[in-house]
Amino acid sequence: MNGTTVVLEPWAIVESELHLDRLAHTESVFALANGHLGVRGNLDEGEPSEIPGTYLGGFFELVPLPYAESGYGYPEEGQSLIDVTNGKLIRLLVDDEPFDVRQGELLSHARRLDLRTGRLERDLVWESPTGKKVRVCSTRMVSFVQRAVMACRYEVHALDEPVRVVVQSTLVANEPIPEEKGDPRAALALRAPLVPDFHATHDLEGALGHHTAASGLRLATAMDHVIEAPSSGTATSAECEEDLARVTVSTDLAPGESIAVVKYVAYGWSSRRSTPALRDQVDAAIEAAKRRGWEGLCRDQEEYLDDFWARADIEIDGDDELQSAVRFALFQVLQASARAERRAIPAKGLSGRGYDGHTFWDQEQYLLRVLSYSVPEAARDALLWRHSILPLAKARADELRLRGAAFPWRTVRGEECSGYWPAGTAAFHLNAGIADAVWRYVHATGDTVFDSGAGLEMLVETARLWSSLGHFDAEGCFRIDGVTGPDEYTALVDNNVFTNLMAARNLRVAAEAVARWPSRARELGVTEDEIERWVKAAAKVVVPFDEELGVTAQSEGFTRYRQWDFANCPPEEYPLLLHHPYYRLYSSQVVKQADLVFALFACGDAFSLEQKCRDFAFYEKVTVRDSSLSASIQAIVAAEVGQQQLAYDYWRETSLVDLHDIAGNTDDGLHLAALAGAWMVAVAGFGGLRDHTGELSFAPTLPEALSRIAFHLVHQGRRLRVEIVPGEARYELISGESLELLHHGTRFTLTAAEPVVLPWSPVPPDGVISPPPGRAPLERGVGADRDAPVHEPTG
Amino acid sequence: MNGTTVVLEPWAIVESELHLDRLAHTESVFALANGHLGVRGNLDEGEPSEIPGTYLGGFFELVPLPYAESGYGYPEEGQSLIDVTNGKLIRLLVDDEPFDVRQGELLSHARRLDLRTGRLERDLVWESPTGKKVRVCSTRMVSFVQRAVMACRYEVHALDEPVRVVVQSTLVANEPIPEEKGDPRAALALRAPLVPDFHATHDLEGALGHHTAASGLRLATAMDHVIEAPSSGTATSAECEEDLARVTVSTDLAPGESIAVVKYVAYGWSSRRSTPALRDQVDAAIEAAKRRGWEGLCRDQEEYLDDFWARADIEIDGDDELQSAVRFALFQVLQASARAERRAIPAKGLSGRGYDGHTFWDQEQYLLRVLSYSVPEAARDALLWRHSILPLAKARADELRLRGAAFPWRTVRGEECSGYWPAGTAAFHLNAGIADAVWRYVHATGDTVFDSGAGLEMLVETARLWSSLGHFDAEGCFRIDGVTGPDEYTALVDNNVFTNLMAARNLRVAAEAVARWPSRARELGVTEDEIERWVKAAAKVVVPFDEELGVTAQSEGFTRYRQWDFANCPPEEYPLLLHHPYYRLYSSQVVKQADLVFALFACGDAFSLEQKCRDFAFYEKVTVRDSSLSASIQAIVAAEVGQQQLAYDYWRETSLVDLHDIAGNTDDGLHLAALAGAWMVAVAGFGGLRDHTGELSFAPTLPEALSRIAFHLVHQGRRLRVEIVPGEARYELISGESLELLHHGTRFTLTAAEPVVLPWSPVPPDGVISPPPGRAPLERGVGADRDAPVHEPTG
Repeated sequence: MNGTTVVLEPWAIVESELHLDRLAHTESVFALANGHLGVRGNLDEGEPSEIPGTYLGGFFELVPLPYAESGYGYPEEGQSLIDVTNGKLIRLLVDDEPFDVRQGELLSHARRLDLRTGRLERDLVWESPTGKKVRVCSTRMVSFVQRAVMACRYEVHALDEPVRVVVQSTLVANEPIPEEKGDPRAALALRAPLVPDFHATHDLEGALGHHTAASGLRLATAMDHVIEAPSSGTATSAECEEDLARVTVSTDLAPGESIAVVKYVAYGWSSRRSTPALRDQVDAAIEAAKRRGWEGLCRDQEEYLDDFWARADIEIDGDDELQSAVRFALFQVLQASARAERRAIPAKGLSGRGYDGHTFWDQEQYLLRVLSYSVPEAARDALLWRHSILPLAKARADELRLRGAAFPWRTVRGEECSGYWPAGTAAFHLNAGIADAVWRYVHATGDTVFDSGAGLEMLVETARLWSSLGHFDAEGCFRIDGVTGPDEYTALVDNNVFTNLMAARNLRVAAEAVARWPSRARELGVTEDEIERWVKAAAKVVVPFDEELGVTAQSEGFTRYRQWDFANCPPEEYPLLLHHPYYRLYSSQVVKQADLVFALFACGDAFSLEQKCRDFAFYEKVTVRDSSLSASIQAIVAAEVGQQQLAYDYWRETSLVDLHDIAGNTDDGLHLAALAGAWMVAVAGFGGLRDHTGELSFAPTLPEALSRIAFHLVHQGRRLRVEIVPGEARYELISGESLELLHHGTRFTLTAAEPVVLPWSPVPPDGVISPPPGRAPLERGVGADRDAPVHEPTG
Repeated sequence: MNGTTVVLEPWAIVESELHLDRLAHTESVFALANGHLGVRGNLDEGEPSEIPGTYLGGFFELVPLPYAESGYGYPEEGQSLIDVTNGKLIRLLVDDEPFDVRQGELLSHARRLDLRTGRLERDLVWESPTGKKVRVCSTRMVSFVQRAVMACRYEVHALDEPVRVVVQSTLVANEPIPEEKGDPRAALALRAPLVPDFHATHDLEGALGHHTAASGLRLATAMDHVIEAPSSGTATSAECEEDLARVTVSTDLAPGESIAVVKYVAYGWSSRRSTPALRDQVDAAIEAAKRRGWEGLCRDQEEYLDDFWARADIEIDGDDELQSAVRFALFQVLQASARAERRAIPAKGLSGRGYDGHTFWDQEQYLLRVLSYSVPEAARDALLWRHSILPLAKARADELRLRGAAFPWRTVRGEECSGYWPAGTAAFHLNAGIADAVWRYVHATGDTVFDSGAGLEMLVETARLWSSLGHFDAEGCFRIDGVTGPDEYTALVDNNVFTNLMAARNLRVAAEAVARWPSRARELGVTEDEIERWVKAAAKVVVPFDEELGVTAQSEGFTRYRQWDFANCPPEEYPLLLHHPYYRLYSSQVVKQADLVFALFACGDAFSLEQKCRDFAFYEKVTVRDSSLSASIQAIVAAEVGQQQLAYDYWRETSLVDLHDIAGNTDDGLHLAALAGAWMVAVAGFGGLRDHTGELSFAPTLPEALSRIAFHLVHQGRRLRVEIVPGEARYELISGESLELLHHGTRFTLTAAEPVVLPWSPVPPDGVISPPPGRAPLERGVGADRDAPVHEPTG
């Protein structure tokens, strides 16, 4: 199913009617998170729901990874993000009827995710089967400021008649969740994964403690309540058992009267600290939240977001839907990462269990591009998580008979969890992406502590990996054979250009970092010979080129592969990997997602503009975007090569991926990399930002449909604003020291004293470049549900 | 563990001491089979044993095939050959002591596998813990003539004192077998896989009926007995339950007296016939065996083998061990295939459950090369099995989005059971091997019924596969990208030479067959366009060549891969796939088994002798023979390029693979392909037989160590004998019409009237060619047990 049921306002996502058949979609879209704690947008009363979900970053259970035929170095244990205790449940009885939207009549319904307050608001009027009417107003938040805390305010208003009202606020552990198909042993490990340790109630407080059976993680959850009720006749009680704690408030409301319950929930988990320590921790967090109070938490949240938007907002004139979608995207990037701290940022954030809650290369290649220039402390923390798993990555490299560090393709805690090595372990480019993110963070912030410490170490160990992965052939060229690039429809290839150029970059920046910190480098055992090999490998890396076509080959031989028969490939056969065997995809000229085109962006300094134009035109015709990671990269390169309309269409696709459920699987969680791509297209696409050398270079342009794009950046303590209007770009240094920038190749100095306005001319597109038949932008979801309306670009 | 505990006689394998730590090895070496029924060489009394084993060709249970990450077209069900009812058990009580070689004292022990009588004889003297001595003489056979029948003759002699003797002859179903590691669900499916249907005894008869739970195969087993006992005082009884039938004979023996029990066992299974029908079938088989009697069965067996040896024997002067090993090899090839009839011949025959009893490409590329020229009716039957699964192969091709037929990489019944597609489904060359075997069988026999029927259909459908697998590139070359050749240390490669040349051959011989049978071809829907495409593809197939090295590249780019660091690869790291990740093997110049070198043999007409020399020298240096399929092919090409000593060493390795346990895993069953290789080296290696055009072309030569090799061939109803001595080869037509042959390129006519003697000159080797360090012939097993003595070539 795709399509949308929500309305996009400039600063809010609004649902004015409840679609029971689209619950899973709104659970993902209305998910709240702060990077540490995430709750899906389930209805307060818990039911109906598709996927109840409460997640803590890094809290997982081990599951067996089975193989029909095993092999050396295959991981035998997987890690799966699991549901923790559900703290968002508030059930309501009106007279004797439990409030359930499927019974009685829902006279009105609205939910609103406010991107400036960071709160999810719900307002409804319900008539019970026996005709009693109540209005329920609930507001939920996951605090950006108090990492452990979620809070809800739940109001019930009696309307026409007096009603007897019971509000039950509960904590529930081991709630049943939909089981995935596949290995029954994995399903077994994830069924009721929490083993009870303690349960307690006291006054209006409740607490539950659990641990996981195999991964041995301990969890504590606590709740407390503040009740605003009619002065008399309100009774409360509390009870608990192993997987349940419940506080009950009952009262009688006269028409016009209301009761409000504010629920504070706090979570804590640890692999090291004891259960009593965790219990103290969550009780303390509750106390802190209560002391701040509901209003205080709300104010803190707004201030936090005001600051974020001042640093990161993107303004768009000419497409209101896109304006809203881009802000939603930025908000979700923040929700996924703000307080992730030294834990991995999953591909779906904390909005669902898709991909088992694993973190992939998306973190560095997508999210950290945004965060480095908008929330740099979150970028640092994510990289410090990578650094924290460096011992595991070195052990993995050792297992793989390599030097340096081989970071996992997918993981929660740090161990490789990929069960199909050609599209897992073989995708070594992830390591170069990490090195690139290290480099970017260092240059975007000037953080010398990180640069000389964790950063240097990661650059050195990834450079060592490449040095051992590749080899010099008889002619002295540096080859990297048998690896997989971003395009998972072509695997185990020789000299994938993206991989090779990213590796070369990794080797070069490692050599530079070693030169910056020679004594630290010596501590890491870096030798002159080693550096020499890095530099030579970087200089001599192979980039296959098809002389006859004048096109860079994505990998050796790619341009000679079988043509894909797009004309006879109907929409229902996408995504192709569900309908065609790997071998056929691998040996055909069909590209799942930007790969060579990603190199044109990320390693753009290795290509002339003419070459980029030729390569983009060639690969655009064979790229099917069966991955949501693709559209943003294609948009960026399209903008560079003068294909503004195409860039704009892809921008819409990447920004609306979840709001319009374009990939058809937003139910399982949001597509964070695609959402990060919304920022990337604005800044690197139409803003033309490139940072290959550490300097910021812009090349502003606009699609015809838009009259203005403005974006913000933070850079080494400065705040910048760039505004693009037809024919002009305005650069403003909001705060910080003056700096040199490049505008379409021309250097200028920007000072806080005054903005600089510079002209730009639209480059007429060199012919029409199109995706393959049936794969036009925003049509990607067509295969998933052909009957759904296809959204047409506005403006 | 490797090394040997047996002595090799010219016509027998003899064990004169029982090594309890090598039981599994002797269970495999002393296994008896006829291609339909196989029994491991367990001791009669069942214990001690490592792997009890009784197998019926094609009798399997379904097991789940799990994947950590699933993919389109992955098989979800596997097939595993299972143990059927154990009919070889004969237990003995001497006074009150059960005869067990681990108790009391084994005063003498001998077992002897006689290659001319086809019987396994055992002769022992045992002293019980209480000091009673008996001599036990047992003989076991699996009849080549009566397919369903195994028989044992079990004699007990009282020696110094009178003894009370009880002989229990039993049938046991669902015996516990060693469980494999891996998926516990598969283990569960294979634990007690037989569901009881009936059990019965009558006089000295017993019968059990079972079926498999998931695969739904029905099985019946019956036994009957003839007793030769002292005239008085012998009592018998019979009893049975679901998984057990037992006939008990008890008697008192005075010193010098003996009792003999002849046990006849018959097996029947079916997926279609009912349990009562099967029961009748096995009872009938028992009756037939009893009517023939023990002596009769023995005579039939000897006659069958006399005929076989007359057609297939290889004589060697100069290396007695090799003489014996080659005969053992031929005997095992016969045991695996003689009565397999229209069932698959597993890679391990019916000697163990290694590889789950699956059949691979070995059947056509190794076994059928032997059988076509020695037991052609067995070759035909194996190909008719392939033909019987053509509907499954066509359905598989369809699932893979291909045309024609894609035969399974590994299977029992016909469905693909490979759980790792890069070394399974991607190894499409198997299909060309089947086509080649069809072609060979047709030309070796002149069987026009087969040629115009099953043969034509298989050639057409495999040609269609290649036509859809490959494509013409812009220059009109026919490429086959992304497949895996024989060398499993290099997978998913472009234009593997072996695959491409074999495919070209497949396309050519299909076009020829279509021309022979035009009306049959029309019935198969073959069009002129189709044939034209086949012929064009065959002519334009890509054969990558490294101009700078002057070497054929095994596949595109291979000669540019990383060099393997043999110098620093210690013996315990072999086989490499257990110690190195696939990606590193795949991207290195290290070859598991003959691949390009296999092409030099199988498609030798595509290479000049000079090119063969250069290519062989190049690949020899990087081929580690981590597969037992390699040595024979290397031997054949070594002989062709003048490396007679190396050819001889490899001949020894392939012939002794199981007797010396060179691969370290003979415990799990014999290496039939390597054993077939013993014949191939004699005939195609030193005899130089090539049949690329259908004509037989020889190029006799000898290694220095040997003074004579003679071999036999059957060819289109003729019997030929070729004898090679230094400087001369003698061709003899034993029976049949005269024919033209080639001797070192010179054509001559051979008539039954008189042998033709022709001279040959040894070609001096062009330099020394060696395998990689540590991988000299017969050292392959070193990694498995470094302390075992390494056998040095004799002679």
